[in-house]
Formats: sequence, structure tokens, C-alpha cells
Amino acid sequence: MTIELPYRTTAGTPDYDTILARIAEEVHPLLQLGKVADYIAPLATVAPDQFGMAVVTLDGAVHAIGQAGLRFSIQSISKLFALTMAFGLLGDDIWQRVGREPSGNPFNSLVQLEVERGVPRNPFINAGALVITDILTSRFVQPELALLQAIRSFADCPGLDFNRAVAQAEISSAHRNLAMAHFIRSFGNLRNPVDEVVRSYCFQCSIEMNCIELARAVLFLANHGALPWSGASIISASSAKRVNALMLTCGTYDAAGDFAFRVGLPAKSGVGGGIVAVVPGVCAVCVWSPGLDHSGNSLAGVMALERFTDMTAQSIF
Amino acid sequence: MTIELPYRTTAGTPDYDTILARIAEEVHPLLQLGKVADYIAPLATVAPDQFGMAVVTLDGAVHAIGQAGLRFSIQSISKLFALTMAFGLLGDDIWQRVGREPSGNPFNSLVQLEVERGVPRNPFINAGALVITDILTSRFVQPELALLQAIRSFADCPGLDFNRAVAQAEISSAHRNLAMAHFIRSFGNLRNPVDEVVRSYCFQCSIEMNCIELARAVLFLANHGALPWSGASIISASSAKRVNALMLTCGTYDAAGDFAFRVGLPAKSGVGGGIVAVVPGVCAVCVWSPGLDHSGNSLAGVMALERFTDMTAQSIF
Amino acid sequence: MTIELPYRTTAGTPDYDTILARIAEEVHPLLQLGKVADYIAPLATVAPDQFGMAVVTLDGAVHAIGQAGLRFSIQSISKLFALTMAFGLLGDDIWQRVGREPSGNPFNSLVQLEVERGVPRNPFINAGALVITDILTSRFVQPELALLQAIRSFADCPGLDFNRAVAQAEISSAHRNLAMAHFIRSFGNLRNPVDEVVRSYCFQCSIEMNCIELARAVLFLANHGALPWSGASIISASSAKRVNALMLTCGTYDAAGDFAFRVGLPAKSGVGGGIVAVVPGVCAVCVWSPGLDHSGNSLAGVMALERFTDMTAQSIF
Amino acid sequence: MTIELPYRTTAGTPDYDTILARIAEEVHPLLQLGKVADYIAPLATVAPDQFGMAVVTLDGAVHAIGQAGLRFSIQSISKLFALTMAFGLLGDDIWQRVGREPSGNPFNSLVQLEVERGVPRNPFINAGALVITDILTSRFVQPELALLQAIRSFADCPGLDFNRAVAQAEISSAHRNLAMAHFIRSFGNLRNPVDEVVRSYCFQCSIEMNCIELARAVLFLANHGALPWSGASIISASSAKRVNALMLTCGTYDAAGDFAFRVGLPAKSGVGGGIVAVVPGVCAVCVWSPGLDHSGNSLAGVMALERFTDMTAQSIF
Repeated sequence: MTIELPYRTTAGTPDYDTILARIAEEVHPLLQLGKVADYIAPLATVAPDQFGMAVVTLDGAVHAIGQAGLRFSIQSISKLFALTMAFGLLGDDIWQRVGREPSGNPFNSLVQLEVERGVPRNPFINAGALVITDILTSRFVQPELALLQAIRSFADCPGLDFNRAVAQAEISSAHRNLAMAHFIRSFGNLRNPVDEVVRSYCFQCSIEMNCIELARAVLFLANHGALPWSGASIISASSAKRVNALMLTCGTYDAAGDFAFRVGLPAKSGVGGGIVAVVPGVCAVCVWSPGLDHSGNSLAGVMALERFTDMTAQSIF
Repeated sequence: MTIELPYRTTAGTPDYDTILARIAEEVHPLLQLGKVADYIAPLATVAPDQFGMAVVTLDGAVHAIGQAGLRFSIQSISKLFALTMAFGLLGDDIWQRVGREPSGNPFNSLVQLEVERGVPRNPFINAGALVITDILTSRFVQPELALLQAIRSFADCPGLDFNRAVAQAEISSAHRNLAMAHFIRSFGNLRNPVDEVVRSYCFQCSIEMNCIELARAVLFLANHGALPWSGASIISASSAKRVNALMLTCGTYDAAGDFAFRVGLPAKSGVGGGIVAVVPGVCAVCVWSPGLDHSGNSLAGVMALERFTDMTAQSIF
Repeated sequence: MTIELPYRTTAGTPDYDTILARIAEEVHPLLQLGKVADYIAPLATVAPDQFGMAVVTLDGAVHAIGQAGLRFSIQSISKLFALTMAFGLLGDDIWQRVGREPSGNPFNSLVQLEVERGVPRNPFINAGALVITDILTSRFVQPELALLQAIRSFADCPGLDFNRAVAQAEISSAHRNLAMAHFIRSFGNLRNPVDEVVRSYCFQCSIEMNCIELARAVLFLANHGALPWSGASIISASSAKRVNALMLTCGTYDAAGDFAFRVGLPAKSGVGGGIVAVVPGVCAVCVWSPGLDHSGNSLAGVMALERFTDMTAQSIF
Repeated sequence: MTIELPYRTTAGTPDYDTILARIAEEVHPLLQLGKVADYIAPLATVAPDQFGMAVVTLDGAVHAIGQAGLRFSIQSISKLFALTMAFGLLGDDIWQRVGREPSGNPFNSLVQLEVERGVPRNPFINAGALVITDILTSRFVQPELALLQAIRSFADCPGLDFNRAVAQAEISSAHRNLAMAHFIRSFGNLRNPVDEVVRSYCFQCSIEMNCIELARAVLFLANHGALPWSGASIISASSAKRVNALMLTCGTYDAAGDFAFRVGLPAKSGVGGGIVAVVPGVCAVCVWSPGLDHSGNSLAGVMALERFTDMTAQSIF
């Protein structure tokens, strides 16, 4: 597969600016179709017809369109950073406490947890993220702060912060997550106080970033685990490859199979409408549009990424 | 990630012969640990301590070790070829009748089928393969023969054939598949006589091939859908990419997440002990060892492929 | 609880004729609300606004109203007679092959069967009835004929017969039952050819009886297992008590709890719109109205029985 | 069915003293076979080889054997009293918030709750009892105290009390119940603070009573809802009948079908080893033996009740 004109530079590489412009045009009619997450008030008020997208290549070049500079709630994308931290700290020991298989069920299901005795299927469903947060809680006094600082360094952006109003809203409507955490605790797979773990998890989800910051923050996953600008290793090359594999099979809720089929890139989505994706050895991408499809992924975002791999011919398959 | 010495040729590419020799050595202690499939008599008598592996690169070079020339029952690997045929014939219409999501359940489960009203989760579980076979049965008088001829041309090997004793044994113990087929039929998602569809499916599974033949037969999936030696297109480049994505998320029963994590290649396994894998743009691989792990994948085969991607640095992630 | 006027005779016993007349009046507005079973053509054409009810007391007195003399398809009520036969022949050995617990799931679910390795939850769900039919098939050359003859003697009515058109229609749309039977067979809990067992089961369901005949046919269950007119024992007193217990907990599909709560009598229903109920030591009742509620029980029939126990003060609780 | 000699008095009624003596003898070998509940420390230390049984007839006569005067933890038997209170206060409105069907699943399963959107299947599983406790919490400042006082009056025994050590132990290991309560709350079917409801529920379970007190406390259910000694109505005759029906279909965890089959009486069990049973119009029975079977019911207790209905010929069927 080669990149077709007019999406190719004279050097034969993808012409990202032309591609992004075209994608923005194509997805425009879709911006009204999705449904903004409304389980907490601060998310429900976000206007649905927004769209931003950014590509950051390994050499540091940034290509962006639309509201790529507007921060939004990263929500479940934080699970990717939390997993990276825990995996970096404990290595393969974390797989004693969380699985690596797609869930095949809505992302907050308790059924599978019961059948599998408190071991969540993977670190990207809520149950798995609670176990990862518990692991971080055993290592850090303020795990959400440790995570925030890690993300600041991944993105090379010291100004990132929580949205405390969002965090508080999540905490006060966290009944489903509290149920899950108590349930996991009843199987002995959660070790810190349930309220503390859930609170920390809600804070993680409330972090706000824009498309450019998010694309930069996951660039190490396209670069064998190392920050391209400094060479500093976040996780080993082998671990980075494995995190990418997990994103591909489990990163987009119960639509991972469909996403791999249509887009063909490792990716992680959040109900704030963001999706990050990784083209190993080439670049990282982040798209944002708050209207969600029935699986909880950004409706325009998935389409934008599908078009991106079509136009750039950059799928991993 | 680069290929480490001594697994590198002077040209910097993987030294497949050295790699295969090393893998054969490493997996030798595992050959006794798996459990040979025993649900039909002809499979139960296969000696477990056998191992073969073959790599075929796009330029046609064949690297092989062990019993790579010994034919075995391809079993569920036939699902990959049946999907290719149906997808090639009908295109995206097939997704009206079968899904694209990992099953998250043992490969012959009826539960999900009930919840999802007779639409199997993906074409690589038995239920999905029965629907694909039904699609082929609507197009061909003898669908299993049409498939056999297709595989002969994919592998450039006119001598391939069914093992009729295996097929008959499968047919006489096909209660689970008959249950599934009648169940799907009760939802209207099977259109031909149930007995005929199940019979054809059993014949497909009984085809016998060796590692070299199987690696060659899937090489078009590493080559944008076209046979490298003739340039003839089997399916479009875009379809080949999508079949690879399906293999990655659904190709190894309910261990697909773990397989992607450890191996990182699109692959399809069968209970005969074979696994085919694709390195897009580079080569196809087939490994065979009849002892299975608890998920139904070849125990030594999975380990061999994991070592293969480690040594060649050829994962898609 | 005592019987209120005007539903009491001067002897203090229930005035069944007055009660039946009043019930017929009360349920009249409901006759349009139910939905006639339509999965086979011969049942779909039955007019919904029909109603009949009969009470037969131990002394042989018959009280009837409406279309109590019109024969209808007994459908699942046949399961009660098949269980009686198998239980009488083999005693407690049958519980090795079928359970005694409510299903908690729609009556033709395959889920529970998978979890519980081919042992159906109870003899009144389709899966359980197929196992009971298999037991009878191992004992009789023509099990459906043996059952018909048994029912003829229970009801003291030699003229009863199958409706062959109904039986044939059931056989040609039996995919769900065939699926279930093959599935049970895959666990080894069905021993005769699947097609034969399902065929016999469909014939059993097609037997036609009217309310008076059905009430008389279950009277032995109100009389310690013996036919009141001859004293002949069908099953032991202890077995009769146990069959009644099974009807109470499992006799009305997944609405058994609600039925026990509202009606408080052991009962068995069929999708033909019939329900038989037993008042131990007193009488047997049969009501018929073809419109079904969402659980598959006769909508007007359940209401009629609820009013019957209210007016007669004859609940077992 | 008539009572056989020697279990009959000269008046033809059951000779309860002889019967109880014989039962105690027969169950003696079983006392070692059950497994004492061990999920909290105070219950785990109870000696397993204990047995007591009491029958209280409507005329107030008390027949008892063994340790019928020793108090034990009533545990889930408290659910029967809590349901009575809530049903008495709100009538049929409670069925908006809790179902009436057997659960068909282990008593603390979360699966069904998810499928049925937070409405527990019946008031006798933990989830249902939490909703009933929530209903009582909306009516009383100290719902557990209100319930204790109700039970004191049902049993005519002002000295009954909580065991605070048991209550505290239950509260500190209540992760499963907290999970369930938060989960129900997430569906909006719990209205008071989760911690408060769970705390109150744990206190209810910790109440201690002996067999004689418990048999007396449920005697109104054998007497059309009224206390026999004063005639005071606790609930209506119709409601009493319905509570008995619920006990029969749902009172003994997921063994209700088997219990109805073997014993044939409405009953409610607790993991403390107690079981209460009702013979409508005749008497109430309580048996206690702390060793449990795999369903969580007293192993010797179920056998004792089975022998009781055999010897007295007093089943409801």
C-alpha cells in the first residue's frame, strides 16, 4: 500500500497538513450525531460540535487542525498513563492482578469480575484501572499527583492539572466504581481503603489536556518507550510494544475489534471525546470530538482516525 | 528495536535459519507439556513431541526446521481461508451476518449467541465459521471443494486434500456444532440445511497441510492481498489489512489479548497444533506442534512465535 | 381464612358454580389483552377471545363454564404427564439427569444448560422435557403413544389424540429444540437419536384436550397419586406430593414466583393457553384462554386462578 | 396421606414429642458433616455438632428437643421479619422495588442485578434485603431497632437483642454487601446513604434467638397473619399467605426447588444454621444446627424438616 496523491509530499511521506484539513472537512457532518457523556454535570455541558486533531512525528514536528489546542477531560485515556507507570514500576508482576484479554462486555460490567474472582480482564476497563490505581496507591502517598507529574514529563508540559470540579462530580456519582472496588476488595484484589482508591481514580480521570499535549504525551510509545526529544526511557522497548498490543485489543471499550478492523492502530479512548493513537516508529495522533457513539468512543474521532490510516497508508497491518 | 547479534545477517536482516535452529532448541523441553486434542479419534493418536516451523519471505525464500514438511490437520486455520473467500466474494455485506469483536469466551460458547440474537461475534469462532460456511454454501454446489481449490491456489500446491477419515469422525461427533447451527438457524441467520452446512464445515477442517504449505498459503496477507509470485490479487490491499486486524483481535480463541501481548503478530491457530502468523510486508510464518495449552493453542507454537518476534524484532507494534 | 358469602354453599364449602360464573364475568375484559402463540401456523389462527374453566372435585363432581368443553393444544402441560410417567417408572433415578430448581431464565434458554454441563434445571423447561422424553424413548418403542395412552387412562377418556398437523408444524420449526437436544447430547445426557427424541416431544405437545378432561387428568395429584374413581395408584402419595412441589416452584416458566405469590397453587401451563392447577385433597382445576402474557402463561387464565383462590380461600399457604 | 404409628396420638394428631425425639436420633450422625459459616470470626467459632428443634402449635403448646433453648445468630432469617414489616407498612408498593422470583443463582450474585437494572429478584437474597432495609430506613430513624422491637412483639419476648460483636464483624467484612448496595444505588433503587443501610442490615442479621423463640415469632404466618395468643393482626390473611408463598419459592437460597421437593413447607434459613418453617393452620417449626450444606442451609436442619413432614404427614402439597 502506498500513499495516494494528493496526500503525499514530494519526499513520498504523508502530507499531514493536507490530510488533516481534508479529514476536518469530511467529519464535519458527523459532529452533530454523537451524544456527549452526561453522567456528570461538567461533562454534559460541553458543546458537541467541536473537533480537533493533532499529529506529532518523532522528529518533533506538530501538525494540528481545529480545536487541537483546547483542553478537554482526558477521562479513560488516563488509564494508559497509569498502566505505563505501574508496568514501569513493577514489571510483569502486575499481571498477577489484572488480565490482558478483551472484555467482550460493556466497560463497567460486573459480571466478568464475578466469574473471574476479582481479577479484571484488562487494565483499560474501569475495574482494571481501579486495581492499577490500588497498585499506585501502595507506592505513592498521593498517587494521583504522582501520575499527574508523570504525565507532565511525558508531554513535556508542566502546566497540566486536574479539573477539581470534574473530580468532585465524579466522586459524588461514583456508585458504580465504588461497587466495583468493594467487589474486587471482597476477592482480596484491592488492598488500600476503597474510598481512597476510587477518589484517586476520579482525580486521574479529571486531568485536562489538549490534542497536541496528548499526542506528545504518548509519543514514547511510537519510539520504543523513550522520549524522542531527550532519549530518556520511560519504559523498555519490549514493554512499549506490549502496551501498544494491549491498546489494540482492549483500548476502545467493547468496540476494539471493530476499531482494529477499521483503523488498525493501537489507541486509547475516553468518554471526554478524546482518542490517542500510535503509529509505531512514525508518530502519535490525538483526535477530539465530544459526541460519542454507542460504544462510548468519539463518533467523529473514530471516523477521523479511519480516514487518517486510509490517507497515510499507515496502519500496523 | 533492532535485531541483536547473532540473529542478524551481514545485511542487517534477520538470519532466519539461525533463528529457527535456536527456537527449535529452546522449545524442545515444552513438547511434552501440551495436551493433544482428543475429541475425535484420528487427532488423539498424533504423537505430542513433534515440532516444525517454516518462514516464507515475500521473495519466495523458504526457511524451515524440524517436521516442517509433515502434513497435519489444519482444523480452525481453515476458517481464515473461508473468511477470505467469503469476504472476497461479498465484501462488507458479510458483516451483516457475523461480528468483528473478540468473543471473550471459550470458542464454542452458546451464551453470547443467545444474547446477540444469532449473530456470532466473529468469523473465527465456530459459530461464525458456520455462518461463513452457510454463505459459501449459498454460492457453491460443493463449498468445501471450492474452498479446497482456493487453498490449493493460495499455496500454489495442487496436491492438497481432505482427510476423509478425520472429516467423518468430526461429522459423527458434531453435536456441539449441530446445536450451534440449529440455534443460529432459529434466529434466521443460517439459510441452508443445517446438516449440509455442518458437514461442509467438518470437511474444511479436515484439510491437511504442512508448515511450508501453510506459510505460503497466507503469504498474500503479508503482501497487500496479492500472491507474490504472480502478482494475482486474492483480496484488495484494504481487505488484507482488515483480515490481519481480525486475526490479531480474534485469531487465537480466547487468548487473543495474551497472544497479541506476547507475540504481537496477526495469527490464526487450530486444534491440530498449527499456527500461521503474518509479518506485513515481510513474510509469513507457520509453526506446528500438536500439544495444546488450556486455550486450545499449540503450547510450543505460541512460545516459538514469541521467541521469533523477540529475535527478529518483527512485531507489528 | 374462610370463604366469604356469596361464594359459600349452605354446607360451608365453596359454591363453585357461582364462583366460576363470577370469574368468567371478571376476566372478560382481559380476553383481548393477551397475545396468542404464533411460532407455528396452527396455533396462530386460534381466536384470542375464548375462555373456559372447569373444576373437578375428588367425588367426581364437574363444574364448568364457557368453552370448557372445547379441545385445545395442551403443549407444555404434556410435560407434567411425561414427568409423572418417567418418575413412576424410574423413581428418584431421574434426578441424576434433570434438576429440581427454578430456571430463573426464559423457558428455552441455553445459557444455564452450558453452565450446568447438560443437566437441565427442571423437567418443566424444554431442555428438561427433552431429557424426560429421552428416558421414555429408552423404555418404549413409541414413547409418544405410550404417553397418550397414559393420559387417556389418567383422564378416563379413550378418545384423546394427537393433532398431527400441529405436530408436523412443530417438527418443521423445531430448530431451537434441536439445538438444545444436540447440545445436551454433546454432554452425554441424551442417549437416543436427537431427531427421534425431538419428534416424539413435538407429538406429545400436540395432544388436544378440553378443560374438563385436563382437570380430570390431574385429579390424581390432588388425591395422593391415586385415581379417585377407581382407587388405582398412578404414583405413590409421596411422589404426588413431590410433583406438586415441582409444579409450584417450576410449573409456570419464569413467572413461578409471581404465580405462587398471586395464586398459591401447584400448576402447569402451556403456550396453547391452558393451565392446570391442583388443590391437594380437594379438587383439580383447568382454565383455558389462548391470549398469553409476556411470560408465556395465559393472561386471563392466571387472573382466573388468582380470583379462584381468593373466592374459595383454597390456597395451599 | 395419614400419620403412621407410632407418630400419632390417640386423637389422631401428630405426636410431636415422639417425632422430635426420633428426628434428633436420626440426624445425629449428620452433625459432623456440615461446614460452619466462617466468613466472620464470631460465627466460625460455633461448635458444629449442636442441634435443637422446636414446634409451637397454634394453641400455644411448645414441643422442643436438644438445644432448642440456646440462642444463635438468626442471620438471614431476619429478612423474613424485615419483609413482613415493609410489606405491612407499604403493601404492594414494595414490589416496585424488589421482585418475587427465585434467583436461580448463588445468594450474593451481582449478575442478575445488572441484567435486571438494580431490581433484586426477591426480598430474601442479600440484594433484596438491602432494598427492604432501605425502605425501612426511609421510615425509621433507627430501622434496626424498629425491627428488633417488632420481632420482640412477634415472639412475645422482650429480652431479644443484637449481638454487637457479630454486627461489628459483619460491618468490617461487608465488602460484598457494600458492592451490592452501591451497585443498586447506581440504578437509583437505594435512596439512603449506602453505609447507613449496610450497617443497619448487619445489625439485623446479628439478632440472637433460640428455636422456641423463632418458632413463636413466625407463628402468625401459620395463623392468617395474626398472633394466636392475642388475636392481634401483624399483616392481613392475604399478605401472610403471600409471604408463605415467597418463602416456599425463595426462602432457602438457590436450593428452594429442592427444599420444596423434599420438605414441602414454606421456610426461611440463615447461615447461622437456623431454619424456620410454617405449617399453615397448624404450627410453626424451628430447627437449628450450625453445620451448613453447599447451598448455605443447615445440613442436619433440612434433613430434620424432611423427616418432620414425612412423620407428621404435614406438607402443604
